[in-house]
Amino acid sequence: MEAASVNLINDLKQILSESQVTENQTVRELHARDESYHAVSLPDIVVFPETAQQVSEVVKLANKYKIPMVPFGLGSSLEGHVIPYNHGITIDFSLMNKILEVRENDFLVKVQPGVTRSQLNKELKKYGLFFSVDPGADATLGGMAATNASGTTSVKYGVMRDQVRDLEVVLADGSIIHTGNLAAKSSSGYHLNGLFVGSEGTLGCFTELTLRVYGIPEHVMAARASFPTLNHAVEAVVSILQSGVPIARVELVDEPSMKQVNLYSDTSYNEAATLFLEFHGNEAGLKHDVEFTKEIVAEHNCYDIEFETDNAARNRLWEARHNLAYAYIHGNPGKKLMVTDVCLPISELSGAIHHAREAVDLLGLTGGIVGHVGDGNYHVLLMIDNNNQEEIKRAEQLNEQIVLYALERKGTCTGEHGVGVGKQKYQEKEHGNSLFVMEKIKLALDPDNLLNPNKILMLERV
Amino acid sequence: MEAASVNLINDLKQILSESQVTENQTVRELHARDESYHAVSLPDIVVFPETAQQVSEVVKLANKYKIPMVPFGLGSSLEGHVIPYNHGITIDFSLMNKILEVRENDFLVKVQPGVTRSQLNKELKKYGLFFSVDPGADATLGGMAATNASGTTSVKYGVMRDQVRDLEVVLADGSIIHTGNLAAKSSSGYHLNGLFVGSEGTLGCFTELTLRVYGIPEHVMAARASFPTLNHAVEAVVSILQSGVPIARVELVDEPSMKQVNLYSDTSYNEAATLFLEFHGNEAGLKHDVEFTKEIVAEHNCYDIEFETDNAARNRLWEARHNLAYAYIHGNPGKKLMVTDVCLPISELSGAIHHAREAVDLLGLTGGIVGHVGDGNYHVLLMIDNNNQEEIKRAEQLNEQIVLYALERKGTCTGEHGVGVGKQKYQEKEHGNSLFVMEKIKLALDPDNLLNPNKILMLERV
Repeated sequence: MEAASVNLINDLKQILSESQVTENQTVRELHARDESYHAVSLPDIVVFPETAQQVSEVVKLANKYKIPMVPFGLGSSLEGHVIPYNHGITIDFSLMNKILEVRENDFLVKVQPGVTRSQLNKELKKYGLFFSVDPGADATLGGMAATNASGTTSVKYGVMRDQVRDLEVVLADGSIIHTGNLAAKSSSGYHLNGLFVGSEGTLGCFTELTLRVYGIPEHVMAARASFPTLNHAVEAVVSILQSGVPIARVELVDEPSMKQVNLYSDTSYNEAATLFLEFHGNEAGLKHDVEFTKEIVAEHNCYDIEFETDNAARNRLWEARHNLAYAYIHGNPGKKLMVTDVCLPISELSGAIHHAREAVDLLGLTGGIVGHVGDGNYHVLLMIDNNNQEEIKRAEQLNEQIVLYALERKGTCTGEHGVGVGKQKYQEKEHGNSLFVMEKIKLALDPDNLLNPNKILMLERV
Repeated sequence: MEAASVNLINDLKQILSESQVTENQTVRELHARDESYHAVSLPDIVVFPETAQQVSEVVKLANKYKIPMVPFGLGSSLEGHVIPYNHGITIDFSLMNKILEVRENDFLVKVQPGVTRSQLNKELKKYGLFFSVDPGADATLGGMAATNASGTTSVKYGVMRDQVRDLEVVLADGSIIHTGNLAAKSSSGYHLNGLFVGSEGTLGCFTELTLRVYGIPEHVMAARASFPTLNHAVEAVVSILQSGVPIARVELVDEPSMKQVNLYSDTSYNEAATLFLEFHGNEAGLKHDVEFTKEIVAEHNCYDIEFETDNAARNRLWEARHNLAYAYIHGNPGKKLMVTDVCLPISELSGAIHHAREAVDLLGLTGGIVGHVGDGNYHVLLMIDNNNQEEIKRAEQLNEQIVLYALERKGTCTGEHGVGVGKQKYQEKEHGNSLFVMEKIKLALDPDNLLNPNKILMLERV
């Protein structure tokens, strides 16, 4: 950014206070990265709006100067979504972090985009409610909507897109729209909620979200089941799903990852292919589900199953699971995380994980396999040395092999992390000529390609 | 259609067989209406394609001659969706009625758009599976996707949009795309599945659908609960939902409608405000849910609750509920059906139904109130004399009052029937300036406004 910059800064300071606009190097560096291995790139300016109106005015100014913008939550994305490769303005939503309304009788909440998932759940607990989407990281809800995040509970409660009833969005021209309403269903007009969720900041900035929440279940039971091989564990999940048991969570953690868990979380779980399970329901129904599940896992050679009914033990279990990525990061100082993220039809999952395990070994990489296997979604966690080009190359080769395997079986290159820049090269292969439809929509709504340019779609224009 | 017609017909007969293209008056008349009171309008030509390729070629021809097109399933729409007010070509999908694949282990089916819901369920039964969306009418699945249909089971299983994993779509330019994949979730690219579902034929013609299906539940129990007033029944539903009981169906039928049910279905149910309920689950859990529900309805003055556990009695119950619209039609020969269709946040439902009941009486209309009340969606069923302009006017006035009441409370003008032409006048009020976003998308994908023109959106161009 050259000539425009002084004028733009001055204009920004007309609409925002001095402290809401910065060119400070440290602040810019904090907005130059996400939690992934993707290369850093600095924004020119970081702004901290407090209202939708301010966001709208920032966007109008960016339009005036034709400067790109990147909306930014907490930077916990994993595919470079928030890294401003075209520089320009990063719009940081951390000051818009208020829970605006809890409509407990409607099972709805209205929040600003900078509210984090744990902040929301802390508030909801007072009402006997909880927000279901649980991607591990304590991301902002705006960011989670932008990437259509999901996680451990999606097998029962659905993904982020299923929870969004309405978004307030600032469009590329600065106008402010609402994408939905508060009714549980609607057949009125095009489904803009669904379109904007997962648009990764390329179609608009979210300034308010109305989300579905749930009653805390009457009874919860969690379990850890150990298997002799990864394949046995995966096959057990397929059988559980096919049995119709309404499972709330079912997570796979492989043997190397269980070792990391024990090291990092100070637990002494079996170091074997493990399923972390959770059941929600009434006591009588749950007992039946648990018994049925025990029979199913036994048929798949499960040699140890431990149940955790009390809150503390259950929380410890899920905390250990959630800390896994950090356990890897912690255990590999100086290295960066690369995570694959394919999702396949459930009947293809066992073959896919087997293929991934072999590919990791063949490429001489070390990595763990974990996954939200109830959805057919699994991750290979790799710790890579960002200074070792050859290692990066092998890791990317692995990612590519895993993605191609999934796409050939009608899966997707990203189950929950999103496209960002990391999955761009697979978009054409995955979407074919429906990519043209996406491009037409993007250009219809953001003709100058100013909103998070060249994320998801690589357009010629900028 | 004048000069172009002979050439167009000749061109159509180059790509379709003689019997797949018709100008026959009777066939055109069958495609000039739907099941509603909306005025009829004839297409010029009706075509019956057998493949996506044929649909694509028809669309390309329509483009060449700039002739509008309307995709047509069975004509069971309720807001004039399939009525070709701009004439042109109606594309009838009745020959594309094959179930292409049942992936039982993935809980997925692939069907052509002309397959009906009952046809699919008959096939799925062999696999112990069922398709959940149940709008009453035995509509085609293509049509149900086009309007984002829902119905009695949506409170548990979701609406049509929730079931669509992939669509094959012929776009306005004749190109063929796929909108999704077979994975249970994806964060890859814009969510085209969600955009195309509910687009009412204005963005493309569906030529193949991949849909989610479910295992037939282990145990099912149905019940009928009678209440002294409509309000007691509605309040009971709100309490059931808030209790967290995972109810599979909860339908409200008012006293006048119960009378119609008994008359038409030869039943002798209590003629009172009634809830039809259904529970799905394992035996132990279900028993607990039913007991809990009994307590809740008792608190709301339910004076009679009858359970139906055997299949035959349960089917009779739901058949009676489903036949209600036909019961009204049958009981009012010569009159046409007008149905309101608002959906509100659940906390507003009781007030809304109370308001509707008063409005019906004040306007001197006769009509029944029924609804998928678990979703906050209810209908007033009115039988109107299409030759009586004054009666039509009063019915439209009622519809307007009901819609405005819902919109003021952040509901929607249509919960499940769609916009068609009937709900067009409320689009601006409901969507505000997000209507411009919809228009931009429509024009980006169908610049000549040839696909079901002037449904949902009223565009200047045609």
